[in-house]
Amino acid sequence: MTTTYDLVVLGGGPGGFDAAVEAAAAGLKTALVEAADLGGSCLNHGCIPTKLWLGATSAIEELAAQTKVRVASGEIRVDFTALQSRKDRHIAATRKAMGSRLAQLGVDLLTGRGRVAGPNALEVKCADGVKPLAFRNLLVATGSRPAAFPGLTPDGARVLDSTGFLALTAMPKSLIVVGGGFIGLEMAQAAHRLGAHITIVDALPRLAGLEDPEVSKALETVFKRQGWDIRLGVKVASVVTQDDSAVLTLEGEAAGEELLAECALVAIGRRPNSADLGLESLGVELSGPGYIKTNEHLEAAPDVYAVGDVNGRMLLAHAASHQAHYVVERLLDQARGAYESGPVPSILYGSPEVLRVGLMAEEAKAGGEDVLVSRAQLIANPIAQAHAATQGFVKCVWRQGRVAGITAVGADVSRMAVAASLIVRAGWTREDAAGFMFPHPTLDESLKAALLADKEAA
Amino acid sequence: MTTTYDLVVLGGGPGGFDAAVEAAAAGLKTALVEAADLGGSCLNHGCIPTKLWLGATSAIEELAAQTKVRVASGEIRVDFTALQSRKDRHIAATRKAMGSRLAQLGVDLLTGRGRVAGPNALEVKCADGVKPLAFRNLLVATGSRPAAFPGLTPDGARVLDSTGFLALTAMPKSLIVVGGGFIGLEMAQAAHRLGAHITIVDALPRLAGLEDPEVSKALETVFKRQGWDIRLGVKVASVVTQDDSAVLTLEGEAAGEELLAECALVAIGRRPNSADLGLESLGVELSGPGYIKTNEHLEAAPDVYAVGDVNGRMLLAHAASHQAHYVVERLLDQARGAYESGPVPSILYGSPEVLRVGLMAEEAKAGGEDVLVSRAQLIANPIAQAHAATQGFVKCVWRQGRVAGITAVGADVSRMAVAASLIVRAGWTREDAAGFMFPHPTLDESLKAALLADKEAA
Repeated sequence: MTTTYDLVVLGGGPGGFDAAVEAAAAGLKTALVEAADLGGSCLNHGCIPTKLWLGATSAIEELAAQTKVRVASGEIRVDFTALQSRKDRHIAATRKAMGSRLAQLGVDLLTGRGRVAGPNALEVKCADGVKPLAFRNLLVATGSRPAAFPGLTPDGARVLDSTGFLALTAMPKSLIVVGGGFIGLEMAQAAHRLGAHITIVDALPRLAGLEDPEVSKALETVFKRQGWDIRLGVKVASVVTQDDSAVLTLEGEAAGEELLAECALVAIGRRPNSADLGLESLGVELSGPGYIKTNEHLEAAPDVYAVGDVNGRMLLAHAASHQAHYVVERLLDQARGAYESGPVPSILYGSPEVLRVGLMAEEAKAGGEDVLVSRAQLIANPIAQAHAATQGFVKCVWRQGRVAGITAVGADVSRMAVAASLIVRAGWTREDAAGFMFPHPTLDESLKAALLADKEAA
Repeated sequence: MTTTYDLVVLGGGPGGFDAAVEAAAAGLKTALVEAADLGGSCLNHGCIPTKLWLGATSAIEELAAQTKVRVASGEIRVDFTALQSRKDRHIAATRKAMGSRLAQLGVDLLTGRGRVAGPNALEVKCADGVKPLAFRNLLVATGSRPAAFPGLTPDGARVLDSTGFLALTAMPKSLIVVGGGFIGLEMAQAAHRLGAHITIVDALPRLAGLEDPEVSKALETVFKRQGWDIRLGVKVASVVTQDDSAVLTLEGEAAGEELLAECALVAIGRRPNSADLGLESLGVELSGPGYIKTNEHLEAAPDVYAVGDVNGRMLLAHAASHQAHYVVERLLDQARGAYESGPVPSILYGSPEVLRVGLMAEEAKAGGEDVLVSRAQLIANPIAQAHAATQGFVKCVWRQGRVAGITAVGADVSRMAVAASLIVRAGWTREDAAGFMFPHPTLDESLKAALLADKEAA
């Protein structure tokens, strides 16, 4: 006789794990099916290891900034083997803590690949055989994986995807990064600090192509000053391992030109993990590269939900967790309205950092809407001055007298993420900003300065 | 014939300067009287130079943390002369920018000591003679100065107050800090990073005596681990310069015991600058050590306002600025209600940092009120892990199901100040926290974890 679970969750990344924990804590009989490791891409091959690299090397940037203004000098050596070992231990400990939490809450964890086997039924291919699961509700949170294209396919030798790159045992002396988005830029920054010479190649005409063009420009300026070779608006014919090198061949105008490095990282986006799950039998539809279509309640079919990267709404761990919270509330009859994300903050870590939340001026203009913008430069901020990291700005987008978006670039701007998100959500007026007590001195005063600055057409 | 100013401001620190700028921008005819330098204690002898020291040396702490976990090694040398020169240039440039702003807005700046000369009249002793000023409204924002007591009086040789300490041309090899409050602790941290051996002496039984006792304990643990000699609950008979040393003599139980160091910093609080201003003739009253009494509209007498340190409400630059904004709104007939500060964030910078906003559990208990608390440890946070700085916690105080206060201690917790302040102001419930999208990974998730943690009696 089989248990019928109130909720079966497919995928133990941020969305799936949080859903399982919340559901079980609320008394729902819950199972979690994970084919690989608890924590998903974020913990095991994504944001967390990257942040461990960036955190471990941040003193290098701090020192470089003070060296540039001739206040400090010195040398910092990072033991990459020790760093990787610390990273692996941290990830393993976090996975263990996640497992304990599931056990403590009575969540049944199945390690194996799950596949729909009929209405309200799943089969999980575990190491010790196929196990059937019956469910009242299914939550698909299977996430995404690095994208690969013909000619741009990691071979695991000198051409790596983000997963392979984060598993390196030695940092190469030179690195070609294909893709100038957040993933590529964070990893390139860590590699730069660890001594790699960086070449960035992107088909788009600017770095961080989804961000405000002024942000792209600021990033390009800083990275070029660090000696990076940045090739924008160029197409890649192929990148392959030849002997002991990664060889990238350009096409288009620069056709035939080759770039060589000790290693290449392909970071050209991510693709949803929606294939081979048997979801079509439940009436689930896919769109684009395989994103699961969801309605305003995050339902993909009756009693079937999808959250996180796999639904394609927003490929961010915190978006997955937020959606998971909504689904569990819905299962508990506590969320009757449509899902609303509220402002979704997006962060590039490193030096500089990028923060974006809410509307960008470009988006508004593309939609035919006239918005106003106001700005403050970090150079006027005492905390930016204290860290000798004064490049960058905060920019606010105004719609009908209220803040609709905040974008920032510069050292440590990620620390303003929650404040910016709360302010955008509340739709502050200029008077709201003037009447709120921002602590002094803080980097956040640059946000205040931007909110109080004169507005101009975008 | 004399101009009658709509507003004359006495004191060009954060409160006075902001008031003058806001008033002039709104069209009020404004004069600002400053006896010394624009920017007041905060810019010239307080928060800003201290933050420049801490910012310039933060790589040292980052490296120390990574060295401790054996990921990094290295040496950082800070050129103290270069740091002081950079600090002086930054302060001078900021003062200059402030002066330009005043000129641009048409504020008349008088450099000299102002004194009330009758109803609606002031005399300013300038270098080139005494100048009379007629005003409709007077704002007193004369700030505060370091406190000194018999036996504990800086002599400018080896015994210094914060002003003298920040003006040092070389960092001593050993430093006695009298006073374990925020000012003493920030300067001690900077001195420690710059190579000084630190001894802290305080009559109170714990460091940062105004904070949550758990914060005091966390600070003491970290600083002791750094090798500081911390003497709490001891009384100082005297501290004097003898030959080439500062000599501190204890009294009470340890009577006669002497502590020696190359230098001593006396940081035992601040005293209001309210004497010799002729305010009594306007009916202004003083309390305690000379704080100007103000009513709920920040009025000290009809048409006379007082903001900032001198009114004793809250000795913080941002509190002064916030009060100044209220006074100008009131002069413009835009603020009719009583002054309300909202939550006032208080920050200790350094490593670790302290953040406090709103109610502390101890305060509530002292007032006979039962509150609940919830906590999260930084060790569970991936950004704290990335910086190998996992000591510390976030603690929330709950009153009737709503957040009434947030306290945190640990590396970089200051970055949560604005978010914490907004959350306390909004009086979040646990459900508010659960439904808000905190970006991942951020240090702020430790705040989320504390908000979602089980509550217990304080």
